[in-house]
Amino acid sequence: MLVVMKHGASQAEIDAVVEVIEEMGYEARPMPGAQRTAVGLVGNDGRVDSSRIEALAGVAQVIHVTQPYKQVSREWRPENTVVTIAPGVHVGGNEVVLMAGPCSVESEEQILAAARAVRAAGAACLRGGAFKPRSSPYAFQGLGKRGLELLALARQETGLAVVTEAMDESGAELVAEYADCIQIGARNMQNYSLLRFVGGLGKPVLLKRGMAATISDLLLSAEYILAAGNPNVILCERGVRTFDTAARNMFDLTAIPIVQGLSHLPIVADPSHGTGIRDKVTPMARAAVAAGAHGILVEVHPNPERALSDGAQSLYPEQFAQLVQELRAIAAAIGRTLTPAPGTVPVAVG
Amino acid sequence: MLVVMKHGASQAEIDAVVEVIEEMGYEARPMPGAQRTAVGLVGNDGRVDSSRIEALAGVAQVIHVTQPYKQVSREWRPENTVVTIAPGVHVGGNEVVLMAGPCSVESEEQILAAARAVRAAGAACLRGGAFKPRSSPYAFQGLGKRGLELLALARQETGLAVVTEAMDESGAELVAEYADCIQIGARNMQNYSLLRFVGGLGKPVLLKRGMAATISDLLLSAEYILAAGNPNVILCERGVRTFDTAARNMFDLTAIPIVQGLSHLPIVADPSHGTGIRDKVTPMARAAVAAGAHGILVEVHPNPERALSDGAQSLYPEQFAQLVQELRAIAAAIGRTLTPAPGTVPVAVG
Amino acid sequence: MLVVMKHGASQAEIDAVVEVIEEMGYEARPMPGAQRTAVGLVGNDGRVDSSRIEALAGVAQVIHVTQPYKQVSREWRPENTVVTIAPGVHVGGNEVVLMAGPCSVESEEQILAAARAVRAAGAACLRGGAFKPRSSPYAFQGLGKRGLELLALARQETGLAVVTEAMDESGAELVAEYADCIQIGARNMQNYSLLRFVGGLGKPVLLKRGMAATISDLLLSAEYILAAGNPNVILCERGVRTFDTAARNMFDLTAIPIVQGLSHLPIVADPSHGTGIRDKVTPMARAAVAAGAHGILVEVHPNPERALSDGAQSLYPEQFAQLVQELRAIAAAIGRTLTPAPGTVPVAVG
Amino acid sequence: MLVVMKHGASQAEIDAVVEVIEEMGYEARPMPGAQRTAVGLVGNDGRVDSSRIEALAGVAQVIHVTQPYKQVSREWRPENTVVTIAPGVHVGGNEVVLMAGPCSVESEEQILAAARAVRAAGAACLRGGAFKPRSSPYAFQGLGKRGLELLALARQETGLAVVTEAMDESGAELVAEYADCIQIGARNMQNYSLLRFVGGLGKPVLLKRGMAATISDLLLSAEYILAAGNPNVILCERGVRTFDTAARNMFDLTAIPIVQGLSHLPIVADPSHGTGIRDKVTPMARAAVAAGAHGILVEVHPNPERALSDGAQSLYPEQFAQLVQELRAIAAAIGRTLTPAPGTVPVAVG
Repeated sequence: MLVVMKHGASQAEIDAVVEVIEEMGYEARPMPGAQRTAVGLVGNDGRVDSSRIEALAGVAQVIHVTQPYKQVSREWRPENTVVTIAPGVHVGGNEVVLMAGPCSVESEEQILAAARAVRAAGAACLRGGAFKPRSSPYAFQGLGKRGLELLALARQETGLAVVTEAMDESGAELVAEYADCIQIGARNMQNYSLLRFVGGLGKPVLLKRGMAATISDLLLSAEYILAAGNPNVILCERGVRTFDTAARNMFDLTAIPIVQGLSHLPIVADPSHGTGIRDKVTPMARAAVAAGAHGILVEVHPNPERALSDGAQSLYPEQFAQLVQELRAIAAAIGRTLTPAPGTVPVAVG
Repeated sequence: MLVVMKHGASQAEIDAVVEVIEEMGYEARPMPGAQRTAVGLVGNDGRVDSSRIEALAGVAQVIHVTQPYKQVSREWRPENTVVTIAPGVHVGGNEVVLMAGPCSVESEEQILAAARAVRAAGAACLRGGAFKPRSSPYAFQGLGKRGLELLALARQETGLAVVTEAMDESGAELVAEYADCIQIGARNMQNYSLLRFVGGLGKPVLLKRGMAATISDLLLSAEYILAAGNPNVILCERGVRTFDTAARNMFDLTAIPIVQGLSHLPIVADPSHGTGIRDKVTPMARAAVAAGAHGILVEVHPNPERALSDGAQSLYPEQFAQLVQELRAIAAAIGRTLTPAPGTVPVAVG
Repeated sequence: MLVVMKHGASQAEIDAVVEVIEEMGYEARPMPGAQRTAVGLVGNDGRVDSSRIEALAGVAQVIHVTQPYKQVSREWRPENTVVTIAPGVHVGGNEVVLMAGPCSVESEEQILAAARAVRAAGAACLRGGAFKPRSSPYAFQGLGKRGLELLALARQETGLAVVTEAMDESGAELVAEYADCIQIGARNMQNYSLLRFVGGLGKPVLLKRGMAATISDLLLSAEYILAAGNPNVILCERGVRTFDTAARNMFDLTAIPIVQGLSHLPIVADPSHGTGIRDKVTPMARAAVAAGAHGILVEVHPNPERALSDGAQSLYPEQFAQLVQELRAIAAAIGRTLTPAPGTVPVAVG
Repeated sequence: MLVVMKHGASQAEIDAVVEVIEEMGYEARPMPGAQRTAVGLVGNDGRVDSSRIEALAGVAQVIHVTQPYKQVSREWRPENTVVTIAPGVHVGGNEVVLMAGPCSVESEEQILAAARAVRAAGAACLRGGAFKPRSSPYAFQGLGKRGLELLALARQETGLAVVTEAMDESGAELVAEYADCIQIGARNMQNYSLLRFVGGLGKPVLLKRGMAATISDLLLSAEYILAAGNPNVILCERGVRTFDTAARNMFDLTAIPIVQGLSHLPIVADPSHGTGIRDKVTPMARAAVAAGAHGILVEVHPNPERALSDGAQSLYPEQFAQLVQELRAIAAAIGRTLTPAPGTVPVAVG
């Protein structure tokens, strides 16, 4: 940690900083400069709580050299974490996992049609919401427990692993019962009570990046889950909010290699929410795989123009099937393969 | 609602839009233009769910003319809502309410010293956190229920109304029991399950704007609380996240007159989180009152350099006392007054 | 400067950093930590160019402790710079200077009417564009030289000082000839060739903050003008671009006290562009003065509904007159006064 | 165009809007709704200047259905524009053009080494700055005319086409004389005087997106160049500024398919500035090609740790050679090829 003093800081103010650092059990190294003095703090084993120092007179800024997170850090664990969602579905290794399905579970007919279509195209995992966080209280909020039952039915028939969102503690318990992986949505990324709760449920968690979350914030939220005892966390880039409204969000694909440098946790990407526009989903799904994503989360609906939510960003099943062909070739171009759909054998390229 | 067709949309695609609009029970008015056709939807009583139309072929964009929120809107209720937190403490009228206190409740001695100081300076309401949402799981998380008991003790001694944050359902029940107003923090602004829950508790709610929330998002989150039966919502501007890190957040004071135009709900401002820097709190608190805020939320600590959180942005008690003098004069300049501290008489200016 | 090494940086990599620092003529102070080593650079008299060090193997991050700007810094010059635009019009002292007028100069009749109205209300300075940077090449681009002649005419009649924008070198020469202060607009804030050029013209410069400029960027752009020999620079906050489109820009009033802490240069605020909405201009102009701005730039048009540009954010003359009354009272509340209109005596408050 | 009236707008206010629309020569279609009335404007052949209407009483919002740009629009010209920079180097068709080289031209030895290396690896075009826009006036500003001479020398030896930046009119004339393509940098994207000037020089222009420019802003700036008579414009995505500082910019790859939908102009991507971190350049260059970019602009330096600027984001020649192999395979996966380096034959994949 480096404590930068104000230009005109007095010697007494510098001494006070040194004193507080030593009182906290660390070593202080003043570094006088032409414009101002900085005081280095050494001897810390992890990030130091700087609140006391920041409040001292004469302090301009406190700069942390140590990352605020710990267990999620690649410095804590150098090898990649591979999260196994279901038998044969491993996220974080060399295989790219395709997770696809409708925004919301709407009916038995719809979810079964979607599941069959995405499995036929090559997906290994079914996505679909039973609990929907909607910005308006008057919009469709999902089928709730009935939606989870339908997802379980689709899994039984197709063998696809199931990932679905939970919005609160009671919902998370239900999701843990019916699904293979609990999704925490962007709006709840900093709902720390919920993070701690799902950390205790013993199921893999897919944690989406919040709309204004830095990569560091995302890792800190994952840290809450690991700190609660659950190492099986998959991060998900799904776009952030910026000044440009040309797309629904700004899809930050650079987050993929950055996270892979900072953390051992796997990271997948969601080009459907990342762009919000059907005909941009395909190029950006390709881009995500080319950037090194461990998986892709794509909205596919058997009948997008009848969808109860997100119809405008859902692929038609045939578009998804075409996309999977392209993703297979791009994965091969960088030495990777796609996880095969359940009950199928890997498809060779070329 | 206006459905804008793509440049090359065919007549059949335009007809399909008209058909779906009529199927939904509204009237469609095609408006051919030189570059493209637009189709107006009329006859709606509130915002229309546009998901089916957005997914249709040939549709470029759907533009909503009706606001997505309803009960929070000034069009729904033209007169200001005045929320009474405690006897004599009314937020939303002509008086400006000062809410002050430490970031966290740390000890009996600390909270009592803070309460006495802010009351002596002129505050009507005590703020202080018992449950703290911290970005790191390893940071101080607040005293919990013990913190609430200490706030209640401070209220008993000073007569100040108490506002404090809840992070989850069990915490909200406790806060409702001990405090006068339940604060929902920025990170939980879109925790819809929690919004619905506090909407059912019958206590006034102070709802902070999320870090990347538009003003429209803030109003929609308030709509969740009103839709659950609780009309007593106070909105709070506390800064949003932008590209500039010179301050902790970018304090969007224009949100105050904008909200006052769109909604009948009161809006207060928090210059402590809005700036994050002690010596910027005073000018920005003055600016907030000049912009028309119904109240101010300010962090004051009896001993900032010993604070367990946010010490660098907490005012010293004497700075707060000086600020109150300036706020009183600025309020007078625009024809308003400060709510007097409990047990005191209003102070005249000039 | 602090060079933070990667977690796994080897001793050889650390030694290479030390060597380069010493080769550059500074002293290196390695600070080993539990997670990583940092190397302090001391002995620098100003900001060090870190490009060579950033490119070295094993370097995670370079943190500058010294600000990148120099002459604009308060550390370089502790006393406020007061820029005199015209006799009696001093920006940067205790007086608040009101600059008002239409977005564009449109005709002799229009600019004279505007000048008379803002002078009568209490402005000391006339604003109005002769060269207009418009995002569309097909929009009204200003009257050019004819507009400057009309501004000079208005000055002659009313005694108001004139500030107007230049977009390129030839335009800047003309503006320097006809006006009292050369405005550089937000879109040209980082047009370094133009900054250098106006730095050589010997006239005061009003430099607007760019749409995505940090405060540090703004100060660096001002540094270009000072480095070219012109110390008379007035900074201007006019809103930045963010994710919220509720207002035209996000008006960052906290920039006022932040700039005043970092720099000795005066800073004014433009609530017209900062908000873009007529009925938000008044509260935000009040807020800017309460936050400590050295002046206000406001669009006033004798007939807004006939304006060729920015009609929707221009005040009616009577709204401006009312605003000036409120600003006078707010200035008094914080111990300041308004610069009187030319040929008038200061108005006392109360 | 749609004029949305305020909730309480009077009939007289609605009539006034209708009247002004008709006075402007268009047809007005009032559409009364339950909450508010909207008035459609029809009969326009291009975007209507809405300033007069926005300023009328009772108007809440004006919504443009027609795009503000014209000649750059795909509606204006459905087929792709292919810009030929040099014989055999066509940007905008099926081939992906690789443009590579150092940030700045530093010396004859350096630029020749860079040119030979990037040509050997497979680039068709040499990039390198002679005029450098630096945020600090004290940083290295480029070799100027001498740098252009060195670029011309490198072209003569290697056959590579040359693209380099101009910052002002006199510089643009020199660049037009020595190079094949004039680059306008992000900071000058809205320097309209310069855009008009380079529009008249008859050379292809590579226009970079500004740091806070929306895609619509970028297209409007290109419109300035086309309106000045130059149809040969290449757009460039190079990252925008957001709240996350984990990378130098946020690289908005979705801009590629969005621009390709809205405009016939080619678009390339610059992963070096888009990320600012050497080991993120490779994955993001791959992602850009997978997203459909017409070309890639990459910083390559023969000796990054000795670079005078941007050393930390410059690839080593061998990293670039490896990248080209991967790009070739990804291009093939989506049915495209790389433009061969001058004097070489296309390389087949597989």
